[in-house]
Amino acid sequence: MAVYTQVSTEEMNAFLHRYDVGTLLSAKGIAEGVENSNYLIETTGGRFILTLYEKRVNVEDLPFFAALTDHLAAKGLNIPRMLRDRRGEQLQTLAGRPACLIEFLQGVSVTHPTPAQARAAGGALGDMHKALGDFRLGRGNSMGLIAWRNLAERCAPDLDTICSGLRSRVMGELDWLEANWPRHLPTAVIHADLFPDNVLMLGDEVSGVIDFYFACTDIRAWDVAVTHAAWCFENDGTGYHADLGRALIAGYDRQHGLSTEERLAFPILARGACLRFLLTRAYDWINTPADALVTRKDPIAFLRRLDFYAEADPETLVPAQ
Amino acid sequence: MAVYTQVSTEEMNAFLHRYDVGTLLSAKGIAEGVENSNYLIETTGGRFILTLYEKRVNVEDLPFFAALTDHLAAKGLNIPRMLRDRRGEQLQTLAGRPACLIEFLQGVSVTHPTPAQARAAGGALGDMHKALGDFRLGRGNSMGLIAWRNLAERCAPDLDTICSGLRSRVMGELDWLEANWPRHLPTAVIHADLFPDNVLMLGDEVSGVIDFYFACTDIRAWDVAVTHAAWCFENDGTGYHADLGRALIAGYDRQHGLSTEERLAFPILARGACLRFLLTRAYDWINTPADALVTRKDPIAFLRRLDFYAEADPETLVPAQ
Repeated sequence: MAVYTQVSTEEMNAFLHRYDVGTLLSAKGIAEGVENSNYLIETTGGRFILTLYEKRVNVEDLPFFAALTDHLAAKGLNIPRMLRDRRGEQLQTLAGRPACLIEFLQGVSVTHPTPAQARAAGGALGDMHKALGDFRLGRGNSMGLIAWRNLAERCAPDLDTICSGLRSRVMGELDWLEANWPRHLPTAVIHADLFPDNVLMLGDEVSGVIDFYFACTDIRAWDVAVTHAAWCFENDGTGYHADLGRALIAGYDRQHGLSTEERLAFPILARGACLRFLLTRAYDWINTPADALVTRKDPIAFLRRLDFYAEADPETLVPAQ
Repeated sequence: MAVYTQVSTEEMNAFLHRYDVGTLLSAKGIAEGVENSNYLIETTGGRFILTLYEKRVNVEDLPFFAALTDHLAAKGLNIPRMLRDRRGEQLQTLAGRPACLIEFLQGVSVTHPTPAQARAAGGALGDMHKALGDFRLGRGNSMGLIAWRNLAERCAPDLDTICSGLRSRVMGELDWLEANWPRHLPTAVIHADLFPDNVLMLGDEVSGVIDFYFACTDIRAWDVAVTHAAWCFENDGTGYHADLGRALIAGYDRQHGLSTEERLAFPILARGACLRFLLTRAYDWINTPADALVTRKDPIAFLRRLDFYAEADPETLVPAQ
């Protein structure tokens, strides 16, 4: 959420010269996305996002993300593509970092979605799942079930400093999820991080879906569960909004839909989604100084959601349409 | 250089509703300026910078900055104005902070200026000084000569940790400047911080001058000396570029000009400019953790410039035109 790598105007001019985008008119470092450096750039040819990839993104994954966004954009979805330079290359090096130039899309991210906006977000997720039906590449989920045990063990010694009793709660939940995780649901490439931050909206319409850097191959309905957990609660994890949940699922069903098995497994998948964000937030919490400029996100906000899903009835949560 | 105060889309919509600027299309937090939070905003009515003032800016000074930028813009200079809302107000409160909406100007800041660009920057400074001839408000310089002693004493115990011998060097220079500072040169409202960062350029033309938050009443030629120290060296303070210095002064002379007294005093004024930035950088260096996301600027880069000016001959540095 900061600009880690400074790019001078002179370097930026030389970089843009590789592309057919005209000359530079404006460039502002923006605080956006996962731990990358981003600039919002205007040239005589339009507006673009210049992204420099920092440590958290694995360079070897970049061709997968490029192919994925190309695939979705080619199907007409509002997904920003990585531009090709005059030689056809999407991936570059700038200021010693892997870098690319990405289409700019208008739209703003909502903090308190309305049911109409949740329905649109569910619809956009369904559109993506439908469009990915014939996408043939794949990528392992570095934040999926098999990663949680390792992450939990690295956090375990400090979990009780976040909240008394958190360690035994996390370890018990992990045991339960490993024993009960659905093994036969359809898998596909999924976004895996469709928080409101990553959905650009104009009014009640989705104008863009961004930040595919957690996209991976995993249970497709898990993507719906992640989105449900991300959109339907207060930020602090209290106050499930049933109207948002119904709207989100209705929007998704209209474009793609859930099978009976997926509906029945939905609370388990959602508990897994909550544990995933609880663990990564706990890891960051433990490893980020309290006075750092990066805002630490509270892991407990996902423990509260987890508690909700542990009690939830699938028939009420995701009723058959 | 970060976004300290997060503003939700919902808050931003409500804020923009006070103005006649249409509806929100895009908003990106940008890493820019002194310690304020800034968003680059696009609406159906155009593009704007939304600024929220954090601790370092004194709220009571904001009407002065608003009047100053209005005065310069009214004279046709490329200075971004604070917009007035439907009720005529320029200063607002947003997310608990003083805030305003500012015109967006195209242009990029250069890192390695060419002589043509230095000439344009000198010309823009001269334009400002000419345009401020009939500006009647004033503001004390909180970073001027009388502030340096206090700042130096707060830094003194730690100066030698930055560079061995720095403490006695700074204290000796301060004594010398207090004894030799010119007392009878014309004063006026000046920018006082015209680094390349604060000058937007399109090619060799100045398209905007920004960041007036150090503007104050002080010796007018000191503003030229600050700009000279900021533009005519390598970033680390080595390698004075005589061609840039000549171009900058020639650009200034064409619009405003320096008197004989100002020319003769120029090296002293420039030493003062170097001590000012040396001291504020030293203060930040001492008070910023080395691993903070904010990049610490090296105070020694201004000790090197100071050494240069201490040896400089005014006739060579700023020859009469």
